[in-house]
This record gives sequence, C-alpha cells and structure tokens, in this order.
Amino acid sequence: MRGVMLAAAAARLAVAARAFSTSTGGGGAGGGVSMVQGASRGIGLEFVRQLLRRSEQDRVIATCRAPDSATELLKLKEEHAPGRLTVLPLDVTDESTIEAAATKIGESHGSLDLLINASGILSIPNMLQPETTLSKVQKSSLLLAYEHMWPLLKVGGRLETGRGFSLVANMSARVSSIGDNGLGGWHSYRASKTALNQLTKTISVEFARKDNIACILLHPGTVDTDLSRPFQRNVPKGKLFTREFSVQKLLSVIDNTKKSDNGKFFAWDGQEIPW
Amino acid sequence: MRGVMLAAAAARLAVAARAFSTSTGGGGAGGGVSMVQGASRGIGLEFVRQLLRRSEQDRVIATCRAPDSATELLKLKEEHAPGRLTVLPLDVTDESTIEAAATKIGESHGSLDLLINASGILSIPNMLQPETTLSKVQKSSLLLAYEHMWPLLKVGGRLETGRGFSLVANMSARVSSIGDNGLGGWHSYRASKTALNQLTKTISVEFARKDNIACILLHPGTVDTDLSRPFQRNVPKGKLFTREFSVQKLLSVIDNTKKSDNGKFFAWDGQEIPW
Ligand SMILES: NC(=O)c1ccc[n+]([C@@H]2O[C@H](COP(=O)([O-])OP(=O)(O)OC[C@H]3O[C@@H](n4cnc5c(N)ncnc54)[C@H](OP(=O)(O)O)[C@@H]3O)[C@@H](O)[C@H]2O)c1
Ligand SMILES: NC(=O)c1ccc[n+]([C@@H]2O[C@H](COP(=O)([O-])OP(=O)(O)OC[C@H]3O[C@@H](n4cnc5c(N)ncnc54)[C@H](OP(=O)(O)O)[C@@H]3O)[C@@H](O)[C@H]2O)c1
Repeated sequence: MRGVMLAAAAARLAVAARAFSTSTGGGGAGGGVSMVQGASRGIGLEFVRQLLRRSEQDRVIATCRAPDSATELLKLKEEHAPGRLTVLPLDVTDESTIEAAATKIGESHGSLDLLINASGILSIPNMLQPETTLSKVQKSSLLLAYEHMWPLLKVGGRLETGRGFSLVANMSARVSSIGDNGLGGWHSYRASKTALNQLTKTISVEFARKDNIACILLHPGTVDTDLSRPFQRNVPKGKLFTREFSVQKLLSVIDNTKKSDNGKFFAWDGQEIPW
Repeated sequence: MRGVMLAAAAARLAVAARAFSTSTGGGGAGGGVSMVQGASRGIGLEFVRQLLRRSEQDRVIATCRAPDSATELLKLKEEHAPGRLTVLPLDVTDESTIEAAATKIGESHGSLDLLINASGILSIPNMLQPETTLSKVQKSSLLLAYEHMWPLLKVGGRLETGRGFSLVANMSARVSSIGDNGLGGWHSYRASKTALNQLTKTISVEFARKDNIACILLHPGTVDTDLSRPFQRNVPKGKLFTREFSVQKLLSVIDNTKKSDNGKFFAWDGQEIPW
C-alpha cells in the first residue's frame, strides 16, 4: 500500500518536473505556443532549435525577413512533425508584415504563451543612416508585441500550459545599462538598447495593469554569432559563449520568471542588471 | 596690522563669494561664456535671462531655429551692453547649422565654459513621424556637444573663470528614468529622453578620460511652458513651476556641480534621479 502511494507520488512529481523542465511557458500537456522573432540566424535560431526539443506538444512559430533563404529553419521544419514549426515572413521595420504574421498566427494557433524578440543589429557608431535603422529595429520589435501580438498574448499563458501568464522576452544587452556604463563607446547601439529597455518597462507597467502578461529583458552574454563576429578579438578568452550555452541559460531564466519579475532585466545567469 | 590682514582676507573672501554666486561656470572676473541651445522660448529663454543678470563680464550665446522671429531674445539683446548676448541660428536637426554656429562662436568667443542644451519636443505617443523627429532632436543635441562644440569646451572652464572645468548640461526629464517608471505611457518621449541619458553618460565617460569637461543631465520639474501646456490639467496644484523658479533652482544645481558629478542626473532640487 505504502509502495503504491510512493509510486503515485513519484509519478506526480515526475509529471510536474517534466511540465516544468519542458515548459515553454507554454510547455506541458496543453501544448504551449512560442514565437521567436528574428529566428533565421544566431541566438534566435538556437532558441527555435532548443524549444523544439522540449515537449512534443509544444508548437513554435519562427519569423524572419526571408523564409525562403532561411535554410536552417527550413531544415528544422522538415526534421519535426508537421505543425510543430511554422515559419513566417516578418521584417520588424515593415509594419504590414507584422500585421500579416499576427493575422496568420491568430488563425492557425489562436494564442501565444511566449514571445521572444531576438532580432537585432549592431551598426557602426555615429553614422546616421544605420543609427536610424538601429532604433527602428529596436522600437518596432516592441510595437510588434504591443500592438499586434497583444490579443494573442492576452488569451495565452493559461495555467494548464505551464506558467500561468504569457511572457514577452526582449533581447537587450548589458551595454544598455546606464549605471553600468564605465567605458563609453558604442553610442548608437547602447542608446537604442537603452530605449528598448525603457519601452519594455513602460509596456510591462501597462500590460500588468489589465492583462496576464509579463515582459522581461535579457542579456545573452557575448555570444558567437554574425553580430559579434567583427568584435570578437576584444573578448577575453572563455568569455565568448556558444549559442547553445547562452540559449540554454536564457531558457532557464525564462522558465524561472515569476509574474513579479515583470519589467526586470536579467543576464544569462539570472542576475538582475541595473538600469 | 591685524585689521589690514582681516580686510584683505575679507576682500579675498568677497571676491571668491562673488565669483561663486555670479559664476556661469564661467562667471567672475574673466568673463565666462555660456551657450544656451533652444533659447527662443520656455526654459531655454529663461536661462538666457537669468545668466545675463549675473556678472557684467559674462557673455551669453543664445541659439534658436529662427532668430528673426525670436522677439524675446532680440529684446534681451537690446537691453544689454553690446557683445553680452549673441543670438545665432541653430536647428538641432540640421547639422550644417550646428557647424556654422560652432565656427562663428570659435571666431567671436574662442571658448565655451557652459553649454545648456534646452531644445526639446514632446510628441504624440506612438505616431511614427514625430517619434523620429523626437529622437533626432535628442540625439542631435548631443552630437552638437560631442562633435562641434567640443574644441570650444576643451579650452573653456579655466579656474580663473570660476568652475575649473567646462560643463555641458542636458535637459532630460524625470519620466526618462526606467527605475522610476511606475505609470507607463509617454512611450516616445520617455524612450527618447532615456536614450539621451545613455548618450550623455557615454559622452561623460569619454570626455572625462581626456578633457576637462563634465556632462550632467537635469530635470526641471514640471514647468509652465508651451511644451507642458496641453498636459497641465493633470498637474496637481502647486506642482507646476514657473520658469523663473525652475531655472533659478537649475542654475543653483549647475553652480554646485563638482567634477565628480560628471555623468549624473539631477532634479531641480539637487536630488539625484535613478536611471
Ligand atoms: N551576439 C551577442 O554577443 C549579443 C550580445 C548582446 C545582445 N545581443 C542581442 O541578441 C539579439 C540576437 O543577436 P545575434 O547575435 O543572434 O544576431 P545575429 O546573429 O546577427 O542575428 C540577428 C537576427 O536579427 C534578424 N534581423 C535583423 N534585422 C531584422 C529585421 N529588420 N526584421 C526582422 N529580423 C531582423 C536577422 O535576420 P536576417 O537573417 O533577416 O538578417 C537575424 O535573424 C540581438 O537583439 C542582439 O542585439 C547579442
Ligand atoms: N516644461 C516641462 O514641464 C519640462 C519637463 C521636463 C523636461 N523638460 C525639458 O526641458 C527642455 C525645455 O522645454 P520647454 O518646456 O522649455 O519647451 P518649449 O517651451 O516648448 O521650448 C522648446 C524649445 O526647443 C526649441 N526647439 C525645438 N525643436 C528644435 C530644433 N529642431 N532645433 C533647435 N531648437 C528646437 C524651441 O525652439 P523653436 O522656437 O525654434 O521651436 C524652443 O526654444 C526640453 O528638453 C524638455 O523636454 C520640460
């Protein structure tokens, strides 16, 4: 008798543990829906890869500017059961593509539990044209969550699917911290990410007031991607993360995010970063 | 003998006190040179007015987009001795006008002890066109200090003229604080001022490394100007400052700024504002 109870308890624990560890916040039995925006390369692509390795019930939407040439994403799509990965075109600086993606996701999935905004660019500091584009990429990724994905986020995040609230995770960078800025340089990249931090905080306050949605900011560490490549020779040995390592850590931060973390800025190791 | 020494000491003290209280950082016997950018109206205009009331030796440069229609500035120019107030055209979004102003000031004044960037706009949140303009106004006011006025600031700020270093004061706003953002709203205005904070901090680090220049950010309180007019009915009674009061307080913050305050963000009452 006691053996049976123990076995039942262990089974319940195992289910709970699995629901947690495979949660996409989202995750678990209900089948969470996660969207990764900026998923063709780098950190975004790795998020898609690792999210697909979680529960078979989870579905992932990956967006990028040119799906037809996103060979890695198309390969992942083939490797998984039909319906698990949806690839959609979305250029974050072109609002009509955001709107079209939102409409499609509404029809096919009906809700969103997790939205990761991974798109980003790093421009030559102090040149005006890329600076404008840079700000535009950061701001529009917010507009995306705020205006177009909001109805889907609002109906996502049910307790049955794991987290109990929908989560928006925006990729920022430690250099966006004003308090932590002891070196100078990187004017445009810093300022556009600092603006992203402020916009995310603003939206987090507004979402929390009326909806079951939380927003957080993430710093992935210095990660070996196309974006960081031109600057990697300045990175101390051992401080350049693989995409696998960084995303594993970031997913663990995402999994551990509580509703009360709304509006916070976390590094890959879960440490809060000052504004 | 003792009387003579006391008198001499008192005279020295009086000179020191006068140098301090009339300092434009700048100020005092040498004749400080202050520049107010965005001086046609509001807080900028009031800075010009109060700076001109200080030492007769101080000279003020006021810039605005259309000097010919800046009637208040032209009136001030007439009221003061020739050479005390110089009015120059400068549109912060048009770099050629910044360059032209810098050249003129170089020829006529040769150095700058204090630069106050007061230009600012407040746009309708979430509309893209004004948002771009908004960011542009904030960023360009920094470019102004960083690229064009820097040679003049570098040779300014001599100890004889009061402060011992040149000072750049940028008008930010408390709503730019991410840590202090408990209400949401004002997306574009907040984000563009937060970006200004980061840019000012970045520049402060770089200036401090090689030059005798400090940069600070200021919050003027909620002040009765054209900019705040559309929103004044939401301001609690007694919390809407006159321009006279706000600028008096801000000048006192400027006078009390130490080199070690480089990169800090102060409210009108001298309190530091969190990022
Ligand atoms: N790598 C690092 O060390 C590091 C450090 C701190 C923060 N971050 C941040 O992490 C995020 C991911 O960076 P990463 O290193 O993975 O960069 P990455 O390898 O260069 O990838 C950038 C991604 O953004 C997408 N993108 C660029 N412009 C876009 C647009 N207009 N619309 C939609 N997508 C667009 C790219 O898609 P296309 O294929 O269409 O160009 C690509 O998928 C960025 O926000 C970055 O700022 C990275
Ligand atoms: N008033 C407040 O309650 C308050 C609160 C917090 C922060 N602030 C900040 O304090 C600063 C001054 O605000 P204010 O209330 O005095 O505003 P204001 O009365 O509206 O005056 C704005 C000034 O900025 C100038 N300006 C606008 N666009 C410009 C451009 N492209 N180039 C050059 N100058 C330009 C205007 O000149 P034109 O005559 O050419 O238009 C005017 O002199 C702003 O940075 C504002 O954000 C104000």
